[in-house]
Amino acid sequence: MEHITSRRNETVRAAAALRHAEARREQGAFLCEGARLCADAAKSGLTVQSLFYTQKAAQKYTAYLQKVRLHLTDEEYLVEPSVAELLADTKSSQGIYCVCRTPATSRTTLEQFLQQPVQGACLALEQIQDPTNLGTALRTAEALGISTVLLCGECCDAFSPKALRGGMGAAFRLTLVAVDSLQQMLPALHQHGWHTFASVPDSSAEKVTQMDFSVPSIMVVGNEGNGLLPETIAACKHRVTIPMLGRAESLNASASAAILMWEMMRKWSDSNG
Amino acid sequence: MEHITSRRNETVRAAAALRHAEARREQGAFLCEGARLCADAAKSGLTVQSLFYTQKAAQKYTAYLQKVRLHLTDEEYLVEPSVAELLADTKSSQGIYCVCRTPATSRTTLEQFLQQPVQGACLALEQIQDPTNLGTALRTAEALGISTVLLCGECCDAFSPKALRGGMGAAFRLTLVAVDSLQQMLPALHQHGWHTFASVPDSSAEKVTQMDFSVPSIMVVGNEGNGLLPETIAACKHRVTIPMLGRAESLNASASAAILMWEMMRKWSDSNG
Repeated sequence: MEHITSRRNETVRAAAALRHAEARREQGAFLCEGARLCADAAKSGLTVQSLFYTQKAAQKYTAYLQKVRLHLTDEEYLVEPSVAELLADTKSSQGIYCVCRTPATSRTTLEQFLQQPVQGACLALEQIQDPTNLGTALRTAEALGISTVLLCGECCDAFSPKALRGGMGAAFRLTLVAVDSLQQMLPALHQHGWHTFASVPDSSAEKVTQMDFSVPSIMVVGNEGNGLLPETIAACKHRVTIPMLGRAESLNASASAAILMWEMMRKWSDSNG
Repeated sequence: MEHITSRRNETVRAAAALRHAEARREQGAFLCEGARLCADAAKSGLTVQSLFYTQKAAQKYTAYLQKVRLHLTDEEYLVEPSVAELLADTKSSQGIYCVCRTPATSRTTLEQFLQQPVQGACLALEQIQDPTNLGTALRTAEALGISTVLLCGECCDAFSPKALRGGMGAAFRLTLVAVDSLQQMLPALHQHGWHTFASVPDSSAEKVTQMDFSVPSIMVVGNEGNGLLPETIAACKHRVTIPMLGRAESLNASASAAILMWEMMRKWSDSNG
């Protein structure tokens, strides 16, 4: 175990660079912060390349560190608090970090996805800009039993520090498929047997409570401010909405995504026992 | 219209004091920040006592200011940016604020609530500590058509700047009932004909999808970290849970509250046409 005291240390600087999307793409790795998230990465079977912790964290999070070590391939480092700051994204960081290989499942191509069995339910997110929203949507998807999420158009990165925190590690385990233009890919998805449901805040759309989700289904959800692209809505098989008893405009994006996914999974589960 | 240039101005200092819960309680008033929220307060029929804005805000939010003025009882003030800072809770404040009377509906007593017709669906929140969570829950409740929320135990204040922001003004329109100890009040609620449903993350509890919500129903939700008090769970008529297809522990508090309220309202709506 090496002891790093200098903020100029190259290993730490390389790890800190992973706070940025470009470095993550180039290196196929990401930086994980916090005792629970690091242990979760290890428990999810990810390759943990390196582990960094402060003296204080080593004492406080011994059990978590042990879990991470089980999956550690390279080296662990004891770092001074001033060095740990370089790796921290939060103000009150716990002082434990690890560098992990980005899991192959999170880099599934559309071609690979189309070769998989056409069954069950997926989520497609279009142009989500806020990493916390992205994380929360992934977390809810996983909780409800949705294992594949298509990230379409200019979506933020699921492995940024904020998205990881909001997602509680859901990105470690989900199949994530990057799709440049959902609109252009919809005909291929339909040909393969997928049914697509564009969610819109429009009371003239079909009610989500009345849809048949026993078919292979993709729920398509847009970003908080602007919703889905008009061409995406037009190219989906169905336009669905949450029938509102109260003030429709008041439902926020993550509550609305949770209800849409819940309805899809509830009905899927009803028809599949 | 008065022009305030000094940070020592008494009117501004009295308004700024309303950022704190104690002053809000004493004065029966609260401070509202942002063009949309101020206009929403006015549109919701609240008494707007005073209005503060910077020169820049006056130019940018003319239409919003007009809406607020329609309900303004006292004075409006043009304030310098340095003065506006005293009223701001956000870093990038829009520079528009108003002081409103706390609506009487938000100070409904349990006695008053028990005298109201026993029908429909309510939400009860116990010991919510995070104002953003509280705001989001109120916003979702209103969106789904729940008009009464019981705030039980040591709940944070629905009229704090953060809770108002998260709630998008839901607190202006909901009937809010403060309940010191929910456990002690449950027998009275049951006697009046209310059915209570304690939500728990426990797969042995009754499934929320299989409950009868056609009766007058109160969904009882606890705080993010610790859930409901054991004595509250024991005193409720039912223990309900969201049947999970995925990783149950992954669903966050606001997504779970949204799904619970949605199930209650969906079924209530089914049985009431």
